[in-house]
Amino acid sequence: MKLWQKSITAWSEVETFTVGRDREMDLYLAPYDIMGSLAHIEMLCSIGLLEKEEYSALAAALRQLYKDAIAGNFVIEEGVEDVHSQVEMLLTRMLGDMGKKIHSGRSRNDQVLVDLRLFLRAEIEALSGQIGELFDVLQTLSEKHKEVLLPGYTHLQVAMVSSFGLWLGAYAESLVDDLRQFQSAYQIINQNPLGSAAGYGSSFPLNRRMTTELLGFADLNYNVVHAQMGRGKTELFLAFALSGLGHTLNKLSMDVVLYLNQNFAFLSFPDELTTGSSIMPHKKNPDVFELLRAKSTQLAALPQQVSLLTGNLPSGYHRDFQLLKEVIFPAIETAKSCLSMLCFALPQMKPKINILDDDKYKYLYSVEVVNQLALEGVPFRDAYRQVGHDIENGTFNPDRTLNHTHEGSLGNLCTAEIREKWKRVWSGFGFEGVSERVEQLLK
Amino acid sequence: MKLWQKSITAWSEVETFTVGRDREMDLYLAPYDIMGSLAHIEMLCSIGLLEKEEYSALAAALRQLYKDAIAGNFVIEEGVEDVHSQVEMLLTRMLGDMGKKIHSGRSRNDQVLVDLRLFLRAEIEALSGQIGELFDVLQTLSEKHKEVLLPGYTHLQVAMVSSFGLWLGAYAESLVDDLRQFQSAYQIINQNPLGSAAGYGSSFPLNRRMTTELLGFADLNYNVVHAQMGRGKTELFLAFALSGLGHTLNKLSMDVVLYLNQNFAFLSFPDELTTGSSIMPHKKNPDVFELLRAKSTQLAALPQQVSLLTGNLPSGYHRDFQLLKEVIFPAIETAKSCLSMLCFALPQMKPKINILDDDKYKYLYSVEVVNQLALEGVPFRDAYRQVGHDIENGTFNPDRTLNHTHEGSLGNLCTAEIREKWKRVWSGFGFEGVSERVEQLLK
Amino acid sequence: MKLWQKSITAWSEVETFTVGRDREMDLYLAPYDIMGSLAHIEMLCSIGLLEKEEYSALAAALRQLYKDAIAGNFVIEEGVEDVHSQVEMLLTRMLGDMGKKIHSGRSRNDQVLVDLRLFLRAEIEALSGQIGELFDVLQTLSEKHKEVLLPGYTHLQVAMVSSFGLWLGAYAESLVDDLRQFQSAYQIINQNPLGSAAGYGSSFPLNRRMTTELLGFADLNYNVVHAQMGRGKTELFLAFALSGLGHTLNKLSMDVVLYLNQNFAFLSFPDELTTGSSIMPHKKNPDVFELLRAKSTQLAALPQQVSLLTGNLPSGYHRDFQLLKEVIFPAIETAKSCLSMLCFALPQMKPKINILDDDKYKYLYSVEVVNQLALEGVPFRDAYRQVGHDIENGTFNPDRTLNHTHEGSLGNLCTAEIREKWKRVWSGFGFEGVSERVEQLLK
Amino acid sequence: MKLWQKSITAWSEVETFTVGRDREMDLYLAPYDIMGSLAHIEMLCSIGLLEKEEYSALAAALRQLYKDAIAGNFVIEEGVEDVHSQVEMLLTRMLGDMGKKIHSGRSRNDQVLVDLRLFLRAEIEALSGQIGELFDVLQTLSEKHKEVLLPGYTHLQVAMVSSFGLWLGAYAESLVDDLRQFQSAYQIINQNPLGSAAGYGSSFPLNRRMTTELLGFADLNYNVVHAQMGRGKTELFLAFALSGLGHTLNKLSMDVVLYLNQNFAFLSFPDELTTGSSIMPHKKNPDVFELLRAKSTQLAALPQQVSLLTGNLPSGYHRDFQLLKEVIFPAIETAKSCLSMLCFALPQMKPKINILDDDKYKYLYSVEVVNQLALEGVPFRDAYRQVGHDIENGTFNPDRTLNHTHEGSLGNLCTAEIREKWKRVWSGFGFEGVSERVEQLLK
Repeated sequence: MKLWQKSITAWSEVETFTVGRDREMDLYLAPYDIMGSLAHIEMLCSIGLLEKEEYSALAAALRQLYKDAIAGNFVIEEGVEDVHSQVEMLLTRMLGDMGKKIHSGRSRNDQVLVDLRLFLRAEIEALSGQIGELFDVLQTLSEKHKEVLLPGYTHLQVAMVSSFGLWLGAYAESLVDDLRQFQSAYQIINQNPLGSAAGYGSSFPLNRRMTTELLGFADLNYNVVHAQMGRGKTELFLAFALSGLGHTLNKLSMDVVLYLNQNFAFLSFPDELTTGSSIMPHKKNPDVFELLRAKSTQLAALPQQVSLLTGNLPSGYHRDFQLLKEVIFPAIETAKSCLSMLCFALPQMKPKINILDDDKYKYLYSVEVVNQLALEGVPFRDAYRQVGHDIENGTFNPDRTLNHTHEGSLGNLCTAEIREKWKRVWSGFGFEGVSERVEQLLK
Repeated sequence: MKLWQKSITAWSEVETFTVGRDREMDLYLAPYDIMGSLAHIEMLCSIGLLEKEEYSALAAALRQLYKDAIAGNFVIEEGVEDVHSQVEMLLTRMLGDMGKKIHSGRSRNDQVLVDLRLFLRAEIEALSGQIGELFDVLQTLSEKHKEVLLPGYTHLQVAMVSSFGLWLGAYAESLVDDLRQFQSAYQIINQNPLGSAAGYGSSFPLNRRMTTELLGFADLNYNVVHAQMGRGKTELFLAFALSGLGHTLNKLSMDVVLYLNQNFAFLSFPDELTTGSSIMPHKKNPDVFELLRAKSTQLAALPQQVSLLTGNLPSGYHRDFQLLKEVIFPAIETAKSCLSMLCFALPQMKPKINILDDDKYKYLYSVEVVNQLALEGVPFRDAYRQVGHDIENGTFNPDRTLNHTHEGSLGNLCTAEIREKWKRVWSGFGFEGVSERVEQLLK
Repeated sequence: MKLWQKSITAWSEVETFTVGRDREMDLYLAPYDIMGSLAHIEMLCSIGLLEKEEYSALAAALRQLYKDAIAGNFVIEEGVEDVHSQVEMLLTRMLGDMGKKIHSGRSRNDQVLVDLRLFLRAEIEALSGQIGELFDVLQTLSEKHKEVLLPGYTHLQVAMVSSFGLWLGAYAESLVDDLRQFQSAYQIINQNPLGSAAGYGSSFPLNRRMTTELLGFADLNYNVVHAQMGRGKTELFLAFALSGLGHTLNKLSMDVVLYLNQNFAFLSFPDELTTGSSIMPHKKNPDVFELLRAKSTQLAALPQQVSLLTGNLPSGYHRDFQLLKEVIFPAIETAKSCLSMLCFALPQMKPKINILDDDKYKYLYSVEVVNQLALEGVPFRDAYRQVGHDIENGTFNPDRTLNHTHEGSLGNLCTAEIREKWKRVWSGFGFEGVSERVEQLLK
Repeated sequence: MKLWQKSITAWSEVETFTVGRDREMDLYLAPYDIMGSLAHIEMLCSIGLLEKEEYSALAAALRQLYKDAIAGNFVIEEGVEDVHSQVEMLLTRMLGDMGKKIHSGRSRNDQVLVDLRLFLRAEIEALSGQIGELFDVLQTLSEKHKEVLLPGYTHLQVAMVSSFGLWLGAYAESLVDDLRQFQSAYQIINQNPLGSAAGYGSSFPLNRRMTTELLGFADLNYNVVHAQMGRGKTELFLAFALSGLGHTLNKLSMDVVLYLNQNFAFLSFPDELTTGSSIMPHKKNPDVFELLRAKSTQLAALPQQVSLLTGNLPSGYHRDFQLLKEVIFPAIETAKSCLSMLCFALPQMKPKINILDDDKYKYLYSVEVVNQLALEGVPFRDAYRQVGHDIENGTFNPDRTLNHTHEGSLGNLCTAEIREKWKRVWSGFGFEGVSERVEQLLK
């Protein structure tokens, strides 16, 4: 069944090619498609395009389908083109021709737009929650290991003293910036495209403010051409946020792989978190972190995939956009599995104690000595030259006490302040308000 | 002169290779480098690392250099490695060894971090202003031409009635979303990395909250390792915003190129905005819009360039990051010139009147007719089939009156509501507060 | 079962995360893994590491497994990590401990390398064959429609006279260049990495020239570190070839979408090759070609995905490379389905006759007129000005006869010469020699 | 002066925007533009479109201009749009109206096509020569240091014994594959587009085989629409080759940066090849190799930049293509400077002797011991378990003699065989034949 079916059947080759992985992808959208229809029919009823009784019957049926979908019992049947057709077909089975009325004043174009917005909105909420869990893990570990020192590198050269507290805390704070990007994507996504129909609006007297409110959107995509242009663009904005998160996870994973290397040997994991070699019996390979590193580059590649798909196309809907689902939906799964795995693995990490006792790290203290001389009145550049001279002559033997006190330094991690920053950003989402509206619609 | 000069001179081949285009790029940073130093020395004085008199002398000299830089009189001399070295050298010429003291408690790493933050903050403000100008142009033109109808396309097939009002207004509203991305980048960038030194903090008792306030930053990058990891990451966030803007400008330009094509012929521009052919005397080529389209793909390519440069690198500074300047700085110029050109060119556009009189566009009204039948009580699917039948038989002769009333439709563009949305986003930047702090620092 | 299994079992979360889609991907490799083992054991026998009887038993068993794999009866069982483990386990079931001997002198690293080379070699042959089919289709259609004229555009502006013959023939010739890229990838891929073990060779006295010959490789990857570095690099080279092909298919698809647009209306397809709209009964949408356009951008995105995955990693194997399979294998399927669909769809195309009768195309002849004047002795620039003047005054009425005779022009398509070029490139692959060697190994 | 100048002058804003960096870029093309014109007029004369005397005068003038261009004395004057206009203007200054005749039967479109082909052909020859120099350097160093052992890593974990000979030799062999990609690009580029005019051929009876021969092209781009579609596509093919080379240089640079790190400390460079820190007097930073790593990611980004610029555009020339020059020309310079720097820097490398004496590397020998047991008759899997057991119990004390004899292993680097492979690929270019033809044209 196809909503647009004319008298001639497309050849099966064409159908296979055009449907592609779309039915698999559309399953993600089912509950949101139903949700969008619920709001739409309430509005249709309010403007007289549905009778009260029709509305009640349709709403009850849709609520039942929603429960099925949430319970995992929604399937797109063989021969049915997409989620919209499946929902309409199920309603027609239940209620006869009345079922077809949910499509009045809509096009599949704005249906999929609203489905995507509702789905991505929920996914950003879920992702943000998982980012929050990783933030907690990192802050907890940062505090737990804050006394364990670590060499800090610049240019991959031994540079200055760092610590597990600083290192792990840094990634926590990075996640705050990443969260902001998700918030920006969220705010752009959380606007109502419903009513834009095929991208040029409708001659029905739709009440778009009403559906905006019913679906908990923060605002409207007013202009209907703009609403349609959101296809591709909202995916791009989410791709940015996922790519930014990927940047953070990639660097963290690379650090772990490097620190597990025997030449660094800064930390270890239990055997369960490593894998072996088919020919080298001594190997304990960091496959988990290598795959985390690799999967995060897949997130980093998203913006370009979206840009290539959508670039140089004029305004208006193009079927090309269907493939955006295959780019974005699995990437959200990838991001989630990476976040879970890190929350699972990082607490198993055992930092090595007394790393800095090794003599190759004594130069870590050179800046401290320069600074100490400077505090005693030697001009910085002269102190720098003197210490450089000692190092070249092999007479550099630093005092290894540390006294870093400023904000964000070894001795003052500002864990609480960073948590406050997290909370400030988090509160900007307004997830609660959205949940309330959605619950009201569904009950 | 190099800040780190040891006794041996690097071969000139090496120097040429490593300096690259860095001195050219560093010129962009000069005023911001000076600004950062002004805040730093005020803080150094407050914690007793500079005498009051030293501070006064250095501050006066820096304010003079700032004026020179703003006036375009700042040059990085032959043989001087970067902007930081040039500033220190000028101060030393003016004030002797005292000039070197501005480097206490800092590394070039956090100097360039703070320079970049201040520079990019200012550039985002400038870009946002230009986006605002284009927003105004588009809204004005949308209102001016709102009665001129246009075919709307889906799948590049004649679909439904649109208008110049809808089309131009759509791009205005898209810019609001783009502005949000710039705001997100702005909020991430507008945090103070100063005091992170080489990425591992300082043993000096720096007061980082003070420099945060003096430089008008909204917050601190607390964790010093995180502050250093911002290199590459902040450029990535800005690349996202530029890429998002590029997406909008690319589509708009493609639309214009298409509409100028003789088969569409929806609009024209004065000859001054077109170019000719060396062999075809009849040609009026839309080079301006083709180049806008192409330049906006250059913006779209930015995230990937940044991701490739920074991917799979462990934490800590790497010299690789120097090349980020060459990626990002010219791209900002590109974005500005595209925005200027559009503000200049679009008002010259002459929409064609009565486009829809051509018979090939009569099918645009098919949905209207279906909807009308539906309003009269025919089920939507049946109305759809009936009109489809008329079209196949050549008996489709629609009434061409239009009555679109809902928000964001042909008859109700919501120009004022979209302007309100713009203003709400704009006010989230807090540009005024930042300007005030900066003025205070410089006066 | 894992080849490297030590005494502790990895947690199932870790296993799920690390195995990922690898077992699904490894199914592609099964016949090639068996083929590689066949050559390896023949060589092991020749250097005395396998008894003759052991070799015979193992070879017979492997040939049986190969037949099963080709018949689609090879499965990787639950709990088995990869194709290499599955093959070894099946052999052990059949032959006891002797089955384990196929792994002597190898690592899974060079096993997967050789599997990939053999697999990709076969896939390039299959793809090249399909490109050849499309080449034939395009050449045939070019000749069939060579008299049907078409406006040619530059800057998307009506420019000069073209024809369906020129237009379709152009894509045929483009495929010759694309084929060259596949050949370059083929030559790089068709080198033997077997014997490189984990990337550092083996202390066994392997005879690598012998396996090179047995497997039909054209050459060795001599240096074992280089052989290992081929992982990621060979995928990149194939990604280039696929991306180049994508460039061609993308442009062709965009042309078709544009030519199907009602403003151009240069061609049509039967209804079976178009799809409808859920609200606009008149629509015949070119979804097939929009999806072809989109899928070919997915091919274009491949080089960057591979570059991001592998960039900035030092030499030696990294588990990250596992994900290359998920990037490349489905992309090969995508390319194949696009080529099939074009071979199926293009012959259904109906060009419109007499397109150029429309008056808006008369300027197509302006160059002809200028050239004619030039042939009559008027300097080109003066002729150009005169015709330009006629056009501006509306007095341009060209003679519409055409006389293009040079190579590759309207009147002289050089179809045969282009076919000769194709054949020259094709013969450079040497597919036959490879097939013969492989057959010998398997019989 | 513009070739297409009509009566109205474009506003200067438009001119600045459209010309962009084009005059700077066109300087690269000057000698090749002249060369193309030389061949074109000889052909024009042969078909009677130029008098013998005109041809002689024009040819003499063009040869003079060629000498000027080679000597660096060719400038594109203020107000002149591009290199083609400048050449024509200079000829007109020298020879009056006759100078304009070189444009007969051509468009700027096929002029720039032929310029690009000739330029890129020469650049590939130059790049290939430089790759050959680096190949020599690597092979020489590989032989020089072949006795110096190195730990080999997989998963960045200590794995098996490697050597400087293996490591350096690996990159030499990788360059052979890279050279093949350049050859593929060369073969695609080295085809004649001249005569395609604006992409739709010419009504003049051009002799395209003659210009093919005169310019030393190996073949024609027959189909004129295909010839025009080469714009963007040839740049893409070259981008692939540069990106492949970038992949190799990136990995080599990353290895060097890692090996210079104090935890590895496998090699050192003289101080002249390192740089210092502004606050850490002990630092010797590997900036040269970090910048090599970063610049090679810029090469890796090229395919995507070209794909984004050209994707989703229909056939025919678009002004967008102008920006391809800015993407590709500087990238060629980048590649050349990276190759030069590596040829300069690598011979300064000092490998550390006796690295493997450190006890953390003793597990490198575990596979050797397993293999030895296997050779003595212990089944491989049992030997593996026994050695694994010894390692866990701390009783693993391997014999450290090595006996790797197979092709491409530690003890048998196959340097000569790899050189033979290089020569076979090199001879496939046919550079000499091309040079001879070009010399003949210019003398």
